[in-house]
Amino acid sequence: MSLEIKKQVFEIIDENDTKNIQGRLFNIFIMAFIFINTVAIILETVENISVQYAYFFWIFEIISVAIFTIEYILRLWTCNINDKFKNSVKGRIKFAITPFALIDLIAILPFYLVFIPFDLRFIRALRLIRLFRLLKMGRYSKALKTFGIVFKEKKEELYITIFSVSIILIVASSMMYIVENEAQPDVFSSIPASMWWGVITLTTVGYGDVYPITTIGKLLGGIIALLGVGMVALPAGILASGFADIIQKTKEDEIICPHCDRNVNEPKKY
Amino acid sequence: MSLEIKKQVFEIIDENDTKNIQGRLFNIFIMAFIFINTVAIILETVENISVQYAYFFWIFEIISVAIFTIEYILRLWTCNINDKFKNSVKGRIKFAITPFALIDLIAILPFYLVFIPFDLRFIRALRLIRLFRLLKMGRYSKALKTFGIVFKEKKEELYITIFSVSIILIVASSMMYIVENEAQPDVFSSIPASMWWGVITLTTVGYGDVYPITTIGKLLGGIIALLGVGMVALPAGILASGFADIIQKTKEDEIICPHCDRNVNEPKKY
Amino acid sequence: MSLEIKKQVFEIIDENDTKNIQGRLFNIFIMAFIFINTVAIILETVENISVQYAYFFWIFEIISVAIFTIEYILRLWTCNINDKFKNSVKGRIKFAITPFALIDLIAILPFYLVFIPFDLRFIRALRLIRLFRLLKMGRYSKALKTFGIVFKEKKEELYITIFSVSIILIVASSMMYIVENEAQPDVFSSIPASMWWGVITLTTVGYGDVYPITTIGKLLGGIIALLGVGMVALPAGILASGFADIIQKTKEDEIICPHCDRNVNEPKKY
Amino acid sequence: MSLEIKKQVFEIIDENDTKNIQGRLFNIFIMAFIFINTVAIILETVENISVQYAYFFWIFEIISVAIFTIEYILRLWTCNINDKFKNSVKGRIKFAITPFALIDLIAILPFYLVFIPFDLRFIRALRLIRLFRLLKMGRYSKALKTFGIVFKEKKEELYITIFSVSIILIVASSMMYIVENEAQPDVFSSIPASMWWGVITLTTVGYGDVYPITTIGKLLGGIIALLGVGMVALPAGILASGFADIIQKTKEDEIICPHCDRNVNEPKKY
Repeated sequence: MSLEIKKQVFEIIDENDTKNIQGRLFNIFIMAFIFINTVAIILETVENISVQYAYFFWIFEIISVAIFTIEYILRLWTCNINDKFKNSVKGRIKFAITPFALIDLIAILPFYLVFIPFDLRFIRALRLIRLFRLLKMGRYSKALKTFGIVFKEKKEELYITIFSVSIILIVASSMMYIVENEAQPDVFSSIPASMWWGVITLTTVGYGDVYPITTIGKLLGGIIALLGVGMVALPAGILASGFADIIQKTKEDEIICPHCDRNVNEPKKY
Repeated sequence: MSLEIKKQVFEIIDENDTKNIQGRLFNIFIMAFIFINTVAIILETVENISVQYAYFFWIFEIISVAIFTIEYILRLWTCNINDKFKNSVKGRIKFAITPFALIDLIAILPFYLVFIPFDLRFIRALRLIRLFRLLKMGRYSKALKTFGIVFKEKKEELYITIFSVSIILIVASSMMYIVENEAQPDVFSSIPASMWWGVITLTTVGYGDVYPITTIGKLLGGIIALLGVGMVALPAGILASGFADIIQKTKEDEIICPHCDRNVNEPKKY
Repeated sequence: MSLEIKKQVFEIIDENDTKNIQGRLFNIFIMAFIFINTVAIILETVENISVQYAYFFWIFEIISVAIFTIEYILRLWTCNINDKFKNSVKGRIKFAITPFALIDLIAILPFYLVFIPFDLRFIRALRLIRLFRLLKMGRYSKALKTFGIVFKEKKEELYITIFSVSIILIVASSMMYIVENEAQPDVFSSIPASMWWGVITLTTVGYGDVYPITTIGKLLGGIIALLGVGMVALPAGILASGFADIIQKTKEDEIICPHCDRNVNEPKKY
Repeated sequence: MSLEIKKQVFEIIDENDTKNIQGRLFNIFIMAFIFINTVAIILETVENISVQYAYFFWIFEIISVAIFTIEYILRLWTCNINDKFKNSVKGRIKFAITPFALIDLIAILPFYLVFIPFDLRFIRALRLIRLFRLLKMGRYSKALKTFGIVFKEKKEELYITIFSVSIILIVASSMMYIVENEAQPDVFSSIPASMWWGVITLTTVGYGDVYPITTIGKLLGGIIALLGVGMVALPAGILASGFADIIQKTKEDEIICPHCDRNVNEPKKY
């Protein structure tokens, strides 16, 4: 009997099971709740709002932690339905250290730690750790899963281009350091400091807090900008095309069965 | 007889009918008129010009409203030629609440409301509502229609990337808030305030009004810039490729019949 | 006899004839000479250099005008070898008003006009008209020809996207004008003035001379930046892909005959 | 016997031989060592660190030079195993002037030159020449090799676009010089000076140190930004697509033999 309930609960909270109607509602509810939570945490950092609605934020936090704690306990309780975490103790520990279970824990832990007397600054940092709740979305979000696949697929290309960007950045910043150090010893004080210029220029952000002022520096900076800008855009371009490919593929693979609403091309589960 | 005239008028003002020569002239005339209207409204915000040519602007506005009012009335009168809005009252109401009919109304309404005594600021806002006239172009413009199709086609991709961009923006801005808040409490005063930095950096606009000044902030900002810039460019890239595909497809589908000047592959109308 | 010489001269200065060895040398010489000319004109605007090397610049200018004048006269003399400009008077006039012939004339005209007593500012402007000599390169340059083809091929796409960019620019700038005008009446003084902000933001240049300071302005500006940046990048993307296609096509079409060094797939000339 | 050792050493230090297990370990060791060296040289430019850890940096430099010197000597000693550098004197000289051998020499030379009494500034420059050690990575790095191939493949496209970018830059800067020179004689003092504005605008970096302030200048600058930004992005786009093609091709060509871990499609070596 208890096993029956456990299995039902598992089916509801298991995000991979898209058949169960209650499970879907649960997913949508948790997603929406995480979203509201994030908005609340962000708004809480605005002083006016945080002071005026302190009571509301406090109540909302208690409700949030309660819900997320129950969710965490239920997941821990039902996890051994899954064959991967079968053993009731070892399986549970194995489950508890999966990335998503850890995120679930981090999402609620700061609340309980606040009762321990820490210094104020640490508490403040703890409060922002609650933003990790956003990562809980990863479990439900197709978007983040797609990114995961793209990164895996394009691993090699990304490795090569990131390596190249690093070299360009080092070379550009070092040359600029040599050229501008004398004229602007405060700004181009060292190669790592020049790298701030390098990143902000090569990504074309160009805040304008650091830029060459000598003629030779401007000449060099101009050449670096013209040549380097394209290089730094490369990883982005590779990701973009990878992303487009994956979505295209997913679309082609997806034939939704009208009877059970599942993807025909997905592997059968049990 | 009246029906005959009505039908003729409908054929002239119906923007989907590219066969009717008078209709084409009407389209070109209205497009040009909307364009001149927009230029006039824009120029009217320049104080020198608005003062010097006040009389001209006033006359032009009266002519514009007259033309657009006549256009609106004609559309309302003839709309029940179209099977979708057949009923003479219900059909007309149904027509009146279509987006383009609403835009047509908004384009002329402010003029008539000015006669009601409002406060000055409201009148000023009303005058700029006239810029909605630009949206009237949507009816005639192939460009805007193409965009509509692209958005529909790439809906899923856009949803995923916009979701991802939002998460990157939240995470980046929150981290920057934690890191820079102490050094620049005025600029990075809260997470929403840091988001201004986030948007301006990730889109590579980089005005230079907000940027990290601490070493750790610069390090974090540099990493965010290098990684995030590509992500934010993703939706743009997806739109661009979608746009190219649609135009390519349209070009392939378009075989203009030399006898009636219509597209052979378009569905027959009546 | 004279016709024989004329024909020989024509073959040398005709840039489409890639067979003639003397013609090739002539092309390379003129290209290099135009390049040096451009560098000279650019350097002449640097005061130190222009004062110090005034004599050299003067001599070089006289030589340049001499060479370009001779080139122009030879082109005018030999142009009626070409069937298009057969008639000795009408054909020559027809030739003289072709874009490249006009550029050739503009490249030398300012020199002769300097002898007419003008005011100083006009003379200064005249001197910079000499930069039009750069456009003479268009005759020899494959690069510029390729661009011409790309623009023609992608005309429709460019038209649609440029139209869309204009609308986005108008809408964004108008909204920003409404929102920021009160807080920054000097900067966002009118819609045309706000357009400067619009262009600099949407192209992601972001100088930092104009940016929203109100909360609502920053919110609006952020949304505009996130959405608009991609749109403005569209024409560039379309041009880029068009450019890649054309070069690919050219490469596929180009089979160089080993005997005469000409392209096998090019249409025969005579 | 000595030849036997020489051959074994050659196989270890030859970066093209991916079969030899000792050779692979050697490659990884040298790569890691170059990386740490680069980090050390970069950090040494930060004054605090350089003063505090002066002794450590000195020891590390001596070790580095020792290792790189041994590596250089070993390469010079074993190079005539390779058929290309067979002759024991001529072959060695031929080897010594290959780019990578020169880089190896430059990587150690500054250390030995420091003993010669130079002035301080020269020594400082010499110390940064050590950054050339980074280029030693080119020998082992697939990334840099891939870039080399891409540049070769897309040579023509790059030539055309870079030529076009130069012309756009010259034309844009010259026009801006004419328009803004009077209002900002210090900033737009000459065409070369205006080119700094041109590069920073067309690459969309936009520091904000130079921008037009006159109405006509803003109009011109806006048009240049809208049109030019795409052109300057072209070479980057071409490189990106070329890069993607090459990696795709490499992936398709790469069938790793399970017995010897080599690529089946690679040409046999001996």
